[in-house]
Amino acid sequence: MAALEFFRLKTRDEVLALFARFAPTAAETVPLAEAWGRVLARDLAAPESLPAFPRAGMDGYAVRAQDTFGASPGLPQYLELVGEVAMGEAPTLEVGPGQAARLPTGGMLPAGADAVLMVEYAAELPDGTVEVRRPVAPGENVVQPGEDVRAGEVLLPAGRRLRPQDLGLLAALGVTEVPVHRRPRVAVLSSGNEIVPLSASPGPGQVRDANAYLTLAQVEEAGGVAAYRGIIPDDPAAMAEALSEALPEADLLLISGGSSVGTRDLTLMAIRALPGAEILAHGVAIRPGKPTILAVVEGKPLLGLPGHPASAAIVLKVLGQPLLARLSGVQESTPAWGGRVTARLSRNLAGATGREDFIRVRLRREGETLWADPLLGSSALLSPLVKSDGLVSLPLGVEGLFRGELVTVELFSG
Amino acid sequence: MAALEFFRLKTRDEVLALFARFAPTAAETVPLAEAWGRVLARDLAAPESLPAFPRAGMDGYAVRAQDTFGASPGLPQYLELVGEVAMGEAPTLEVGPGQAARLPTGGMLPAGADAVLMVEYAAELPDGTVEVRRPVAPGENVVQPGEDVRAGEVLLPAGRRLRPQDLGLLAALGVTEVPVHRRPRVAVLSSGNEIVPLSASPGPGQVRDANAYLTLAQVEEAGGVAAYRGIIPDDPAAMAEALSEALPEADLLLISGGSSVGTRDLTLMAIRALPGAEILAHGVAIRPGKPTILAVVEGKPLLGLPGHPASAAIVLKVLGQPLLARLSGVQESTPAWGGRVTARLSRNLAGATGREDFIRVRLRREGETLWADPLLGSSALLSPLVKSDGLVSLPLGVEGLFRGELVTVELFSG
Repeated sequence: MAALEFFRLKTRDEVLALFARFAPTAAETVPLAEAWGRVLARDLAAPESLPAFPRAGMDGYAVRAQDTFGASPGLPQYLELVGEVAMGEAPTLEVGPGQAARLPTGGMLPAGADAVLMVEYAAELPDGTVEVRRPVAPGENVVQPGEDVRAGEVLLPAGRRLRPQDLGLLAALGVTEVPVHRRPRVAVLSSGNEIVPLSASPGPGQVRDANAYLTLAQVEEAGGVAAYRGIIPDDPAAMAEALSEALPEADLLLISGGSSVGTRDLTLMAIRALPGAEILAHGVAIRPGKPTILAVVEGKPLLGLPGHPASAAIVLKVLGQPLLARLSGVQESTPAWGGRVTARLSRNLAGATGREDFIRVRLRREGETLWADPLLGSSALLSPLVKSDGLVSLPLGVEGLFRGELVTVELFSG
Repeated sequence: MAALEFFRLKTRDEVLALFARFAPTAAETVPLAEAWGRVLARDLAAPESLPAFPRAGMDGYAVRAQDTFGASPGLPQYLELVGEVAMGEAPTLEVGPGQAARLPTGGMLPAGADAVLMVEYAAELPDGTVEVRRPVAPGENVVQPGEDVRAGEVLLPAGRRLRPQDLGLLAALGVTEVPVHRRPRVAVLSSGNEIVPLSASPGPGQVRDANAYLTLAQVEEAGGVAAYRGIIPDDPAAMAEALSEALPEADLLLISGGSSVGTRDLTLMAIRALPGAEILAHGVAIRPGKPTILAVVEGKPLLGLPGHPASAAIVLKVLGQPLLARLSGVQESTPAWGGRVTARLSRNLAGATGREDFIRVRLRREGETLWADPLLGSSALLSPLVKSDGLVSLPLGVEGLFRGELVTVELFSG
């Protein structure tokens, strides 16, 4: 039975589809100044229109457009200058027929005027008139009330990760706080009898807990809040207890297990010992990363990561970060355009049978061509991952790729 | 003179070249767990080799390779099973000629053995022997000491922004703290008589301080630490005083001025009133963003941003973030591969005469084609920027681009 289960590997897409069963975190309200990078918990509609008043889009003169019709450098029109509109104030003057008023960019259009004549096409004469050398159309160089945003319009949809310009627009509309999903809290546990803390000096056969550090940073990068729960002994009861203790304060449990069959089995035993736990995927058809485990415990996801740091990093990139996006409330209707480049493969690659193969690549520009240089080597090695710029996927069923083929590189951040 | 100066616009590249005169911030030491996203202040060499001992790359049996030569499913070899290597411990057993020992992935290779036979090609028989159905070469499935990293090797160069996997590798090597550049401190000032705080209810002719919020978030996104210094009245003396006060605690001053000629002139007067100030660029040949000012005050950069939030956001993206990267110590030898996609323009675009034109675009996928839909409209409008995914540049001297042309889109984050 265990052997059978071992070979029922799920594909990446099958695992991603399982994430839909996990609910995003609850909403909370944060001040606008702290909302960058947070994910909106509901649609935000504009509480008012923007601009709230007709504004000059250029430095110039507020005029009645019809007074400028027919004006040209050879046959200018002349208007009476009646004064200047000050920034930040409602104009006290009015522009009547045959009149003009100085108006700076952003200033409020005075009553009577319906257009702004750009300063480049006008000249003030000593007799207090303005020479008009070009006609303007009604509404020209005027930003009309509601032209930027109409009151009631949905500006930003639920599930959107807020960008700097989004905050700028919300500030312009007087929105002082926004409803966002709580950052997912992630408990990070390490296991493996060979793992020692960073502060320890590893003896023969021992290695330091590299996974914790890369996991904490990847969680932070994905907008989560990580809490390191330490190194758990390779014992199902101790692991189950550590997971139980971490559960109430976490929205996601990440446990990086040992990479050997024995350690993986211990992790599975520990998960099964938890009340209300269900294994959703035991083994994923990706390389590196086959020993990955997805489980649900009291409605919360648990991701069991491979022990090799390089494998753990790739599983976190390919599965962990999408899971965190789901928990953060990011909606798929929000497209992520970045994070990918197209490059040419610089050597032939053979795929893995029955698994989606993730190849670490370094990018190199040579003239007009962007080359992806595969960095091969065991998933036990961490340095190729550090030297790489991203991953190329050889999907299931693809036998290999040839030198010179165009490939999509999923970039690491940074 | 002022008019002459006005027309000596600098190009984007000329302004970027001026950034070389500003020194990166000083180095400081931070704990590894806080180093994600920070920029290394010096090359980091490996203090030791990785792995430190020969490790099994697969679950299997530690053997002497020569004992397996000639083995096949039809003609297996038989080895004496002498025990098992425990994870995290130096093996107490030795593998002699004709012997084998169980060895889990990551376990230390025992003395005498020089290869690992994968568990898939072996079987344990009831008489205490291991049936070998495939030969292994010396070194096969063994990660040799120093194979991942050699002691003394430069792992990460100065000027690199640290990624999660970089932290993982440093943790594996026992590096507990790292020398990084201090995050640049950025003073953010707003000016313009029409600007009111977010908490205020704007009267006719007034607008809220949107620039502050988008600037604070863009600074944070670029790894800086922003301090908001409030709204400064449109008065050169008050502005000069506010800039002087902000200077000692800042590595960069950002002041968003009004968008009118008058306000720009006030900002220039204020800068000139500062001791040790020099204007490096007054006006940049980009649209939007022409009224941008670059100055140096006591060796520190000052960037004067346009008043329109949409223009300010684009200037920050195109000039402000590269300046922050420079101050952060990011070196150009660290390539940024991301942040760009290639798309097809969905309509004809006319360029701006004498200026590099930045067009806001929304990306849209249609079958295999990624379209860039230009979002036109005055730079006074903020909502097109919020609806856009990135910018397309029409360089100086390019009269326009046709529908269907391939363009590079510089993506906004998020």
